[in-house]
Amino acid sequence: MRYVRFRDPAGAVRRGEYEDGIAHFANESYDLESDEIDVLPPCEPSKIVCIGRNYADHADEMDSDVPDRPLLFLKPPSALAGHGDTVTVPAGKDRIDYEAELAVVIGEQCRHVPQDDAMDVVEGITCMNDVSNRDDQRQEKNWIRGKAFDGAAPLGPVLATPDEVPEDAAVRSRVNGDLKQDGTRDQLIFPIPELIAEITTYLTLEPGDVIATGTPEGVGPLSDGDEVEIEVEGVGTLEHTVRIP
Amino acid sequence: MRYVRFRDPAGAVRRGEYEDGIAHFANESYDLESDEIDVLPPCEPSKIVCIGRNYADHADEMDSDVPDRPLLFLKPPSALAGHGDTVTVPAGKDRIDYEAELAVVIGEQCRHVPQDDAMDVVEGITCMNDVSNRDDQRQEKNWIRGKAFDGAAPLGPVLATPDEVPEDAAVRSRVNGDLKQDGTRDQLIFPIPELIAEITTYLTLEPGDVIATGTPEGVGPLSDGDEVEIEVEGVGTLEHTVRIP
Repeated sequence: MRYVRFRDPAGAVRRGEYEDGIAHFANESYDLESDEIDVLPPCEPSKIVCIGRNYADHADEMDSDVPDRPLLFLKPPSALAGHGDTVTVPAGKDRIDYEAELAVVIGEQCRHVPQDDAMDVVEGITCMNDVSNRDDQRQEKNWIRGKAFDGAAPLGPVLATPDEVPEDAAVRSRVNGDLKQDGTRDQLIFPIPELIAEITTYLTLEPGDVIATGTPEGVGPLSDGDEVEIEVEGVGTLEHTVRIP
Repeated sequence: MRYVRFRDPAGAVRRGEYEDGIAHFANESYDLESDEIDVLPPCEPSKIVCIGRNYADHADEMDSDVPDRPLLFLKPPSALAGHGDTVTVPAGKDRIDYEAELAVVIGEQCRHVPQDDAMDVVEGITCMNDVSNRDDQRQEKNWIRGKAFDGAAPLGPVLATPDEVPEDAAVRSRVNGDLKQDGTRDQLIFPIPELIAEITTYLTLEPGDVIATGTPEGVGPLSDGDEVEIEVEGVGTLEHTVRIP
């Protein structure tokens, strides 16, 4: 099953079943391309737990070592953006990068989840762009200016149940139609169950919380007006535009 | 004015005016020491933006330089704990520290706030303990295991309007009654208006969001069962116990 969250023409927030650009809710069908429909992120996370350097080739392109346990960082809810949005990044930066990621949406409050039970707390999978401001990221200890700014987490639009997403699902980005990243889920150094077990050793995950599983090699800079697509096979494609003041 | 948020004996969440251990709401008065009253954190932050090394003497005791702009990091809502709670920290760590902090509670949604207007977005001041797991903090790039775990942000209980808090307000911690930290607000390297201006250059603050302004010198380790007090002059005292498994 695939779902999409949206604001209908009357202003009500709905979650409909998704099929070929149409959302079905109750007896109605909504064309998501319509100007009257506002596509929303598929969940309302209280936090987004992100993973750094979770693909070996990406760690390599960043001149970084592969970590011996997951490199964790946080994005706050204020970083969220949706499908079709124009993301305005902090002004005056030289390098803003796209980073395609497979994102896990948590379905229930949980802590101390064993790896073997971890997929039971997953509601579904979606797409995220871990938009990164390298100017500041390189200078700061915790990546707040670098990765937690407003618009740093475009998310969605489709939430696919885990059975829809192959173990070797492609994770891709395109900028203005050109393929930039093309990794697969089975390249994750720390797979989803290990991430959930490690994170919940330390903190409680809430329904709607997101784990962004890291980005494959091929990250690169964005220019003002670029159109970004983040695709996760079995889920769909997130599209947004970037404005660089 | 001073306020406190609490759950009344019927289970309703109330915000009452605080006076000498009593909360006044509507026509009722509630003794906050009563077993029937559950004192809550004074706000419901969507994020807690914390400042590292914002007192020169503390940077020195940590063998760290004073940063040339605020060192920012995040705690998620799941890290919150309240007055009177027993905070259970991650298991098997050698060193868990207290860090007394003056915490700012934001009153309105805001971004790009100039320093001169910054106090207008402040609803009030409260107390926070930036509970820190040094074992992991020392090993990780972003301080998630180190400072974002469940219970890492005891907050409250009193929210004082800014006029109640002197410019040189004392910021103190006591462990089992012994004074450990005794700094003042005017020692902040980056004072509150500068913090708000810098943070909102990058991200939107929401009503109830918290800025923890950093800790003075004198941090140190906690032991299982320790009773911690965090005092901010003009606000009050946050008390909690710590359990170290």
